[in-house]
Amino acid sequence: MHKISEPTLILNETICKDNIWKMVSRVSQWNGDFRPHFKTHQSAVVGEWFRSVGVERITVSSFAMANYFAANGWKDITVALTSTVLNADVINELSSKINLNIIVEDEESIKLLEKQLSYPVGLFIKVDGGYHRTGVDADDLPRIKKLKEPLKESKNLIFMGFLIHAGNTYYARSQEQLEEIVKPQLEKVLALKTFLKDDFPLLQISWGDTPSCSMYSGFYGIDEFRPGNFVYYDYTQVQIGSCELKDIAVCMAVPVLALHPERNEIVVHGGAVHLSKDRVELSDGSISFGKAVVMNGLTWDVNCEIGEVKSLSQEHGIIKADETVIRELKPGDVIGIIPVHSCLTANLMKELLCTDGNFIDMIK
Amino acid sequence: MHKISEPTLILNETICKDNIWKMVSRVSQWNGDFRPHFKTHQSAVVGEWFRSVGVERITVSSFAMANYFAANGWKDITVALTSTVLNADVINELSSKINLNIIVEDEESIKLLEKQLSYPVGLFIKVDGGYHRTGVDADDLPRIKKLKEPLKESKNLIFMGFLIHAGNTYYARSQEQLEEIVKPQLEKVLALKTFLKDDFPLLQISWGDTPSCSMYSGFYGIDEFRPGNFVYYDYTQVQIGSCELKDIAVCMAVPVLALHPERNEIVVHGGAVHLSKDRVELSDGSISFGKAVVMNGLTWDVNCEIGEVKSLSQEHGIIKADETVIRELKPGDVIGIIPVHSCLTANLMKELLCTDGNFIDMIK
Repeated sequence: MHKISEPTLILNETICKDNIWKMVSRVSQWNGDFRPHFKTHQSAVVGEWFRSVGVERITVSSFAMANYFAANGWKDITVALTSTVLNADVINELSSKINLNIIVEDEESIKLLEKQLSYPVGLFIKVDGGYHRTGVDADDLPRIKKLKEPLKESKNLIFMGFLIHAGNTYYARSQEQLEEIVKPQLEKVLALKTFLKDDFPLLQISWGDTPSCSMYSGFYGIDEFRPGNFVYYDYTQVQIGSCELKDIAVCMAVPVLALHPERNEIVVHGGAVHLSKDRVELSDGSISFGKAVVMNGLTWDVNCEIGEVKSLSQEHGIIKADETVIRELKPGDVIGIIPVHSCLTANLMKELLCTDGNFIDMIK
Repeated sequence: MHKISEPTLILNETICKDNIWKMVSRVSQWNGDFRPHFKTHQSAVVGEWFRSVGVERITVSSFAMANYFAANGWKDITVALTSTVLNADVINELSSKINLNIIVEDEESIKLLEKQLSYPVGLFIKVDGGYHRTGVDADDLPRIKKLKEPLKESKNLIFMGFLIHAGNTYYARSQEQLEEIVKPQLEKVLALKTFLKDDFPLLQISWGDTPSCSMYSGFYGIDEFRPGNFVYYDYTQVQIGSCELKDIAVCMAVPVLALHPERNEIVVHGGAVHLSKDRVELSDGSISFGKAVVMNGLTWDVNCEIGEVKSLSQEHGIIKADETVIRELKPGDVIGIIPVHSCLTANLMKELLCTDGNFIDMIK
């Protein structure tokens, strides 16, 4: 069995495969395609677990990831990050080999890309249903009409439809709040579909985010779903209500460096370069950088909580815990931290250790 | 010239070498050795720039970094992260080849390591002067006496002295505040030296953090200095007063993806996986994830400010800017972001592009 001596991201394959299977089942109820986002795991091995349950189309958030997964046999990839003319070369390289979809949100980029592209590429217009990170307002019909106009004549930009990321579902803290966030955005994109169905009868709506795909049940008229985080879930998703602690497939094993029972603190080797500096607000208003739990070998026990990570520096984490819990630990013990944001944590670690002792590679 | 099409961390070699030279000069005034912390750059190439000005001893914050720099010819390395018995194997491997110093802060780890170590290793006791992250309280003399007791008889643990990281200097926002934080800690560690000078006449005090080494002038009696961040500096250091914007040696070149002048926002490809989610509070109380500035080719101009990064998701950054500034930009332009925390940013990027167009490798 692998001996932990430094921060190591542990993956429970059973939980992960269960998460994948549950989401496959959910999406199939809504008559939409499943195009999972691979930005969370960024791993060819985990990708194969999706393939084994029938997934053939995927989403990524950068061209670097698109290259990686294309090299690992994926033939149908949507890069769900706005493209500009800067990406023309990599789009040409990828679209010579695979079915590639890109997203755009401005006329100028459409015109410039059209001039430089050598192969057909699927194009989604990024729409904003209310999250207001980016995208064209989903109810700004004049702007949308103007955007799709040059696409009618386009040779290599094949208009596919609209892509939305309702990222404000991350603000929800109950089923009711989630539904209030999802419903108006769903209505907006469905109205868009109705509005353009005469010009583009095959127009698709692509929808994606883990909270809505985990919690909302009333989807209809959506053509594909792109959740990603659900593959591992994390402590933030627990706060939202997308999952329970037991559904989280990853945990950072960290060595205990020092104990300070007089101020209720445990110091671990496990910092911002391992977990990321992402934080979550708990229901009592306090901030956490992760939940510390007991580990036994390479498995962790969410029912044996140690405390909350209250701060992180580059290599150190500070956990607040009861003195009685601290008195049971000693420097050199290994405990677990459930990450706040598994996407950023996995991205930092670049490899996972499975509970069976095998390492899993990720994109480098 | 390299064409930027994705987030790229640019290094201005001239500024960086100037920062190194200035710190060499400062430390030499205080009659202490310079053992710079290499956790910020994590690069053998940048390490050579230190070597060229006479640096032979270095500090790192993990055994992975110690291995990397040992493989790159560094023969005297302090691992400034608390060691426990879990690290015995890597300590033995490294100490068979180089002069290695470790830090400890509990009796049990000293006893267990003493049993397992095969070669002499320098040992510093980590003391806490008031930062309260970790370490033994610098004025807890009974505990310190107890800790150093087994070291008198030790074969392979060579007691070197005390190591302090006055990390609360990062809370300072003026010269006066910095001095208030530094002075009592300096007094505590110097008292410790006096207290133990009969038993350990060669005892050293090792001191390190960029704010104090950049701003404090009254150091005396300290044997070595371990600042690290100064090699690049960053936006946080500007807030503290350790440097000015023009002294920051790194800047993230990011493509503009979309413009939303109606809400004063610029969307860039440059997110938490590039910059890290670290944040800094500005003097007006607002939070920033970086300062956006104009770029010309591979150089940036800190006098041409665009705005503040107000939020980051995995791949996206949102910059707040005046409408007039936004109207001058278009998707596909490249702008710069001065990172909030250059250590975490460099750690994420794993390579740097110099302003002369050459890439510089880092630890992988």
